[in-house]
Amino acid sequence: MEAIRIVDKKLLLLDQRLLPGQVNFVECGDWQAVANAILEMVVRGAPAIGAAAAYGMAIAATGLQQQELSLFYAGLTNAAEGLQATRPTAVNLAWAVQRMLNVARAQTGATAAAIADILWAEANIIAKEDIVVNKKIGAFGASLIPQQARILTHCNAGALATVGYGTALGVIRSAVAQGKQVSVIADETRPYLQGARLTAWEMVQENIPVTVIADNMAGFLMKQGKVDLVIVGADRIVANGDVANKIGTYALAVLAKAHQIPFYVAAPYSTFDFTKSNGDQIPIEERCETELTYFAGTQIAPTGACCYNPAFDVTPAALISAIITEFGVIEQPTTQKLAAFFTEANHD
Amino acid sequence: MEAIRIVDKKLLLLDQRLLPGQVNFVECGDWQAVANAILEMVVRGAPAIGAAAAYGMAIAATGLQQQELSLFYAGLTNAAEGLQATRPTAVNLAWAVQRMLNVARAQTGATAAAIADILWAEANIIAKEDIVVNKKIGAFGASLIPQQARILTHCNAGALATVGYGTALGVIRSAVAQGKQVSVIADETRPYLQGARLTAWEMVQENIPVTVIADNMAGFLMKQGKVDLVIVGADRIVANGDVANKIGTYALAVLAKAHQIPFYVAAPYSTFDFTKSNGDQIPIEERCETELTYFAGTQIAPTGACCYNPAFDVTPAALISAIITEFGVIEQPTTQKLAAFFTEANHD
Repeated sequence: MEAIRIVDKKLLLLDQRLLPGQVNFVECGDWQAVANAILEMVVRGAPAIGAAAAYGMAIAATGLQQQELSLFYAGLTNAAEGLQATRPTAVNLAWAVQRMLNVARAQTGATAAAIADILWAEANIIAKEDIVVNKKIGAFGASLIPQQARILTHCNAGALATVGYGTALGVIRSAVAQGKQVSVIADETRPYLQGARLTAWEMVQENIPVTVIADNMAGFLMKQGKVDLVIVGADRIVANGDVANKIGTYALAVLAKAHQIPFYVAAPYSTFDFTKSNGDQIPIEERCETELTYFAGTQIAPTGACCYNPAFDVTPAALISAIITEFGVIEQPTTQKLAAFFTEANHD
Repeated sequence: MEAIRIVDKKLLLLDQRLLPGQVNFVECGDWQAVANAILEMVVRGAPAIGAAAAYGMAIAATGLQQQELSLFYAGLTNAAEGLQATRPTAVNLAWAVQRMLNVARAQTGATAAAIADILWAEANIIAKEDIVVNKKIGAFGASLIPQQARILTHCNAGALATVGYGTALGVIRSAVAQGKQVSVIADETRPYLQGARLTAWEMVQENIPVTVIADNMAGFLMKQGKVDLVIVGADRIVANGDVANKIGTYALAVLAKAHQIPFYVAAPYSTFDFTKSNGDQIPIEERCETELTYFAGTQIAPTGACCYNPAFDVTPAALISAIITEFGVIEQPTTQKLAAFFTEANHD
């Protein structure tokens, strides 16, 4: 299932709000429509919103290609700011937008139309790279998965959260491809239910056994010895290895530690933000109260009650057994280990 | 708000499945209707289902009062078995049904009609005792609540879970009555949403500030220093102090311990089961998969995914700061402490 498609220089996004009930694509013909689709969570998942935003920049460039260069660049910068402002926590979004802007700015002497073409090509590269990177993450991660492992995951870090294959679910796919008979326990992941709706759906498509649980059941399953390892994706990883990911990840990591269960994070290099020394510096998006107070049009919390709806939390590096990247596995991450690892990786 | 009413020897139960959207009562004219209401969670909460089942026994007795005594007792025993079979984890249900059966069997020489009258009187005593007991729990518990405490609770251990006033929420009500300006954080409590729908509703009715969160957010709030203490009810407490309560309680207790936050359990003596030495012996009810896979008629997990839906979990005594009962507070409960405490209490 491709969640991101290009047809006639328009971006078609699989509407993840409607899964698993409906398979429907939202067409984005200008960058504002892309920004809105990210904001409204038509598309979600750090690498997927990065790729969608890259295409948003290409679409903006096409819309501006009749303009003179100074207006073209001003318009493109405006689109970059608009796209980046949609969601603050995942760093892949800013990474992709900045990469597109840098490519545009590097084209001295080219016409706006020529730069627009170059930006389409760059967005396609970002999208293709994402799948290649995920398959590398998958291969490195699969070595950590025991035969017949019962793997708990949270939210959706699968094909739907990326351009394809997935990060955490990519590791599971790789393990299955290696002949390991694993099974998946999917936290439903309130309030948006990415686990029940998206992860379970991806696993059913691939005939990988999956059991959906409410988020509050994970600890009891661990106590009963029914979980062999936890693997999740990431929205941002900072210099010391602290990880921002979907709300509930932190609690899972504390519970995994208490039960001596390995806790893995799978994420590409584009998820790392070395400008922040620790997780306290990561902005945490708070989303609308109605995500919690209403469900499918039914009011589930009374008028007069407040709600708190942080979309992410931060898991300290000390709770993480290993981070799995396209360059390899970093066990028990620290500032020093991460710095040394990526210096070496970049020299390859 | 009275969730349990008697009109013309029929039991009227506030339909807790429809709150907060609708206030509607289900009329139970025979014991089978009471059993069904317990099974379907029209009424829920350990003390409330105990009281409802006691009235179910009285209703059964009235239905049998024209029978000769041997048939009367056989019918009553049958009703007792049917009521007890509805939900296996909460012990108050079995406690109330057995108490009613014992009272019936003690009436040697009385007519069936006279015994039926006695059973109605006994059910009324059970209901009235419950409120008195809850107020005592509240008074003992309030002493543990600091001024301006931010109190996290799970599920609903309030007036709706009891005949009135509540256990965990009774402690909060008592603290407020003492002039303490507390605020409540209510875990929404998937899959049945007793926190969002019932606890938040009770708090709004009483003008006690309440914030609803998804269950997976509690750990992050603790990490942020936004939770001063946790208080929950119980469905069964065994001899060593292990506590069965709504699924998710165990994870909360682990998280509270990891953050050095006090974790309190408020429950009446009728919740204790001294026939079981530890929590592993408590039967844990598993409920229907559709509680997780559907919401308000919308399918949220794909066909082909399995679900696991335990309604309760067991929290080891070692994670519990104190158990609050109508006889007083037992700190850091153990088998020895509980035995000594209740031996002394029963001598009062």
